[in-house]
Amino acid sequence: MPKISEERRAERREQILAGARRCFAEHGYEGAAVTRLEGAIDLSRGAIFNYFPSKEELFTELAVRDSARMSDLWVNEGLEALVREVMELDPAWLSVYLELFRRVRNDPDFQKRIETRQKAVAPANRARVEEAQRTGEFRNDLEPKQIGMFVNLVLNGLALHRASGEELPSVELVLELLGAAIGGRARPDTPSRTRV
Amino acid sequence: MPKISEERRAERREQILAGARRCFAEHGYEGAAVTRLEGAIDLSRGAIFNYFPSKEELFTELAVRDSARMSDLWVNEGLEALVREVMELDPAWLSVYLELFRRVRNDPDFQKRIETRQKAVAPANRARVEEAQRTGEFRNDLEPKQIGMFVNLVLNGLALHRASGEELPSVELVLELLGAAIGGRARPDTPSRTRV
Repeated sequence: MPKISEERRAERREQILAGARRCFAEHGYEGAAVTRLEGAIDLSRGAIFNYFPSKEELFTELAVRDSARMSDLWVNEGLEALVREVMELDPAWLSVYLELFRRVRNDPDFQKRIETRQKAVAPANRARVEEAQRTGEFRNDLEPKQIGMFVNLVLNGLALHRASGEELPSVELVLELLGAAIGGRARPDTPSRTRV
Repeated sequence: MPKISEERRAERREQILAGARRCFAEHGYEGAAVTRLEGAIDLSRGAIFNYFPSKEELFTELAVRDSARMSDLWVNEGLEALVREVMELDPAWLSVYLELFRRVRNDPDFQKRIETRQKAVAPANRARVEEAQRTGEFRNDLEPKQIGMFVNLVLNGLALHRASGEELPSVELVLELLGAAIGGRARPDTPSRTRV
């Protein structure tokens, strides 16, 4: 195989990931057979698996990148940006995630690999929650972890509604109710009673 | 085929549904092949499809029964009972639901069938929200539909965490934060700031 530059390798990696994401979204995880991946990526299986040794690795990388992007959004732009992003994610790609939940539960190795990589973003997420508690954006009578879990519940619920095509609440309503639940002293003590 | 009594027919129906639920939970929707359904139900395909003309009908009936049970819980026992129930649902069965979300989005007929049957419980659910708004259990500056959507988000998020084996928040934390978000004048205006 001819040597190719680092830059070219990085481009190839991106080409593979972008094609794989489209293929998973279109056919689901199980349905994304190697021949379909080859077609979507426009590379042979040999070339693809030179970068990612298995379909599982390809998927893991995509999932981990999503986590990293969500973490970046949260840390740099805050809760509203995060809520807006989840409500606009590709429903087809979200469905692949949902299918994978079954797999994650039934395959401890896969679960461990995903968790290990996703844990990389946890400290930054937690630090940002703590900062929000200090500035009064979030209430400070709960553990950062408790606040994180509740926000995750709501975001995952939104992702599920988005994936299934169910009607979504408005961004404003979600932010208002999240604010009432976890908002801090920066907000008036009495939750605003305006219609949203 | 010999005639059997109405009572015997009803028993058979329950036998079929219970076996099908176990089979879907174990193998997933796609994986629940007819031979597996026969084994789990302990009846021939002829007997099974005499009651439910397709695997899809079987699944729809199970899903609709779950909705009805959740609605009963909500109407008769309230939010806490509902939250507790969702957090104790069988993760394997929940995963089947999640797989189905993809299908629901891609199959408008299936979506319509599920929605039509699930809409049957909507008026009772809504009436109970309105009652909770009148008694001050829920805030009354939002549409009942908005409150329902937010509660659904949180419950679906819980179901997702439960299905994937992710750590769940405590029931008390969920109720405290839901209360802060949608609770009404029956609660003190200032959200309680006690640790949960």
